[in-house]
Amino acid sequence: MTSKLFDIEAHARDFQNKGPADILRFAFRNFDNLAVSFSGAEDVVLIDIAKRINPDVKVFSLDTGRLHSETYRFLERVREHYNVELEILSPDAAQLETFVREKGLYSFYKDGHKECCGIRKIAPLRRKLQTLDAWITGQRKDQSPTRANVSVMETDFGFSNPRHTLYKFNPLANWTSKQVWSYIQANDVPHNELHSQGYISISCEPCTRQVLPNQHERAGRWWWEEETLKECGLHAGNLEN
Amino acid sequence: MTSKLFDIEAHARDFQNKGPADILRFAFRNFDNLAVSFSGAEDVVLIDIAKRINPDVKVFSLDTGRLHSETYRFLERVREHYNVELEILSPDAAQLETFVREKGLYSFYKDGHKECCGIRKIAPLRRKLQTLDAWITGQRKDQSPTRANVSVMETDFGFSNPRHTLYKFNPLANWTSKQVWSYIQANDVPHNELHSQGYISISCEPCTRQVLPNQHERAGRWWWEEETLKECGLHAGNLEN
Amino acid sequence: MTSKLFDIEAHARDFQNKGPADILRFAFRNFDNLAVSFSGAEDVVLIDIAKRINPDVKVFSLDTGRLHSETYRFLERVREHYNVELEILSPDAAQLETFVREKGLYSFYKDGHKECCGIRKIAPLRRKLQTLDAWITGQRKDQSPTRANVSVMETDFGFSNPRHTLYKFNPLANWTSKQVWSYIQANDVPHNELHSQGYISISCEPCTRQVLPNQHERAGRWWWEEETLKECGLHAGNLEN
Amino acid sequence: MTSKLFDIEAHARDFQNKGPADILRFAFRNFDNLAVSFSGAEDVVLIDIAKRINPDVKVFSLDTGRLHSETYRFLERVREHYNVELEILSPDAAQLETFVREKGLYSFYKDGHKECCGIRKIAPLRRKLQTLDAWITGQRKDQSPTRANVSVMETDFGFSNPRHTLYKFNPLANWTSKQVWSYIQANDVPHNELHSQGYISISCEPCTRQVLPNQHERAGRWWWEEETLKECGLHAGNLEN
Repeated sequence: MTSKLFDIEAHARDFQNKGPADILRFAFRNFDNLAVSFSGAEDVVLIDIAKRINPDVKVFSLDTGRLHSETYRFLERVREHYNVELEILSPDAAQLETFVREKGLYSFYKDGHKECCGIRKIAPLRRKLQTLDAWITGQRKDQSPTRANVSVMETDFGFSNPRHTLYKFNPLANWTSKQVWSYIQANDVPHNELHSQGYISISCEPCTRQVLPNQHERAGRWWWEEETLKECGLHAGNLEN
Repeated sequence: MTSKLFDIEAHARDFQNKGPADILRFAFRNFDNLAVSFSGAEDVVLIDIAKRINPDVKVFSLDTGRLHSETYRFLERVREHYNVELEILSPDAAQLETFVREKGLYSFYKDGHKECCGIRKIAPLRRKLQTLDAWITGQRKDQSPTRANVSVMETDFGFSNPRHTLYKFNPLANWTSKQVWSYIQANDVPHNELHSQGYISISCEPCTRQVLPNQHERAGRWWWEEETLKECGLHAGNLEN
Repeated sequence: MTSKLFDIEAHARDFQNKGPADILRFAFRNFDNLAVSFSGAEDVVLIDIAKRINPDVKVFSLDTGRLHSETYRFLERVREHYNVELEILSPDAAQLETFVREKGLYSFYKDGHKECCGIRKIAPLRRKLQTLDAWITGQRKDQSPTRANVSVMETDFGFSNPRHTLYKFNPLANWTSKQVWSYIQANDVPHNELHSQGYISISCEPCTRQVLPNQHERAGRWWWEEETLKECGLHAGNLEN
Repeated sequence: MTSKLFDIEAHARDFQNKGPADILRFAFRNFDNLAVSFSGAEDVVLIDIAKRINPDVKVFSLDTGRLHSETYRFLERVREHYNVELEILSPDAAQLETFVREKGLYSFYKDGHKECCGIRKIAPLRRKLQTLDAWITGQRKDQSPTRANVSVMETDFGFSNPRHTLYKFNPLANWTSKQVWSYIQANDVPHNELHSQGYISISCEPCTRQVLPNQHERAGRWWWEEETLKECGLHAGNLEN
């Protein structure tokens, strides 16, 4: 398709009250070269819904090298359960070695998660996104203040460039955490074991922690940083909104 | 006081929209011989509020002999933090030995939690309640379907007898789990470590489990039994309502 | 049998180099009214060996009310695996309540484990031993300096009284930890899960900890007390030897 | 120095009964361009001893991307405790992505650990070793049957090539696990938390498990493979001996 003529903002308005399946169906109809970005957490529902619509859906995950053992086991379980081709992207060895030699393995607790996420997540993601026309994410409005205005589909200005426009679909944007978990339980969707251990939002091991009952899931991520700056870089565009 | 003339149902109507502190103040004004029943979970807020009103408040807990190690540590921490006289009640050795010799240590998974709770919780509780005129519990309407009609104060018909009327105060009846946890965090109230590990409702170790995000807390208790029969016997009266 | 004429010290000399099976066979031949004391740890080998010799062997354990959840599960597993009548003894409620009201749940860290063991272990044990002519324990010489001289069989002066002589058999006295574990693995004997988690010697949860590789097992028990006084009271006689 | 004239086998004979400090002193005297290979386990004693002799000792570790969270924390703690320049080597992203896309994240359980170790450990190690004249490892004879003949120093034929001879020092070759742990405790050497949880030999998370009391440490590594083939590739030369 020629993305030039694709007015995604207009489609976003049409789909703003539609469910995940409708949005995914629309995405697959309009793009061939697109993939689901799977974080190893409750966004597994995206794979479950997408697989029913398009059995050939492509999925990729970012292996930062610091995920929980439980998350690695879960990625493998999802790969087998859905018989999905799961591409797992790794950070560049040279970048990582320089960074860690200079700053050690936990610099993010001192000067923020940006640099580490930049090397372990964003660079491999950018490399992957350059090969795609659109990607599908599990972002939801209820996840954090920085995501309160997430649209169901949008131009991804963060990863587009003058020669390449990238689109982003967020089929779960309007779903609440409650809806996601109702779906998971109703459909026997496999889940990350950490979700039975008090974890809600899950990312790298050193940057994720359990939350108390009724505490917002975002309290379990980068808890030493400002609430309104907690965006993982995959969706850094949200911060400028 | 002469409990004969005490129309608790009328008072319950007056207090039905009052907060925990008002209810506790009323309880302490009308009864000398009363105590808080503390389960070792989030009902610690009762102790926190009661202590501010009545520094001499008495508290008791039921040590079934099967609590989590974390719960024992928490009971001790509460004892020290609030400098409260904490009475910890134990089951009768002879009853326990007969029961366990016949049925082993996990019979509840086969024939229900009633018999075990009866020996480990209810009998010691009954023994204690016979010495009191009123008790204070942490029951809340939002905890389970069996508690949806819990009043802020009531006659405890389950533990009263012709010669002794027992009253029960439930100061948190109208509070939601969210309110309890907001209070805990706002007031730096100590909490059971298990609450940071995915547990919400906490009782004996073999009868308690972690719940998934957004799952109701009662799913973590006696999960092999019917939802509408899940009452722990301390408040068995709720089942007949 | 008439214990009066039973010269156990002479028999001990005869059996001092015999294996556990020989010692157990001798015990069963000479006493009807005897039972194995099972701690919920690696002394399960006693049950395994005894069951082959005497399928009706009686076993009892002391449930202090503070055992690890893993130990309770193990007790039950042993009960089922060996189809053994397992008597589980509990402490006296009144004694326990008085002790805990005064001193809390962790007084042993401050003034030693004697008082707590006295109520939770020794008193129920004494009650049980008064009904027996002999008991069988898993004591080994290599377990601690206090056990270096343990005999394979002996008069239990600690629990005998003028009207009642009690004998004690220690069939594993000469076995090393290595031998015990070789037996467990070679014979697929069930073991306490804690043994796969860095625990060697196992007792109550607050008084047991994991040890480092090559650290002596006794370092995992009452680590805040003097090495030569670490005897649990079941075998307090060892201290006077 | 000119390695050509260095008869390490002769020196090995001279040093075969010497302690780690003597061997390290000899290594530092003869080589400038050498480094300690630190696995994140009890070979931390090498760093402790080496630091006293040569404060500028260089250390490197292989971050396979699948280490335990505890091991990452330990690497950082060692870096800070000894103020050592710790180089942490990462696998090549492209190799890893191809491998994982084809075989998933746990192929080693099916077809052996060689391929995964090859990409995650051996390739980064080979890259590093090409820049060194000698390396220092924590290998011990008592670790496994494959290491029973490890010399205190040797030519590393596995990583040498016609243009570059590499030497390998194994200062702990003659020490037992017991000696290593006595040293750690006597000198307050920091240790990996996993060592307090039943782990002895520690490597990647999916290929490491806890062992039972008295079980050989090698039972905790690649337990699904033949004992005599359990060599991690860093020291594959041992297999041909």
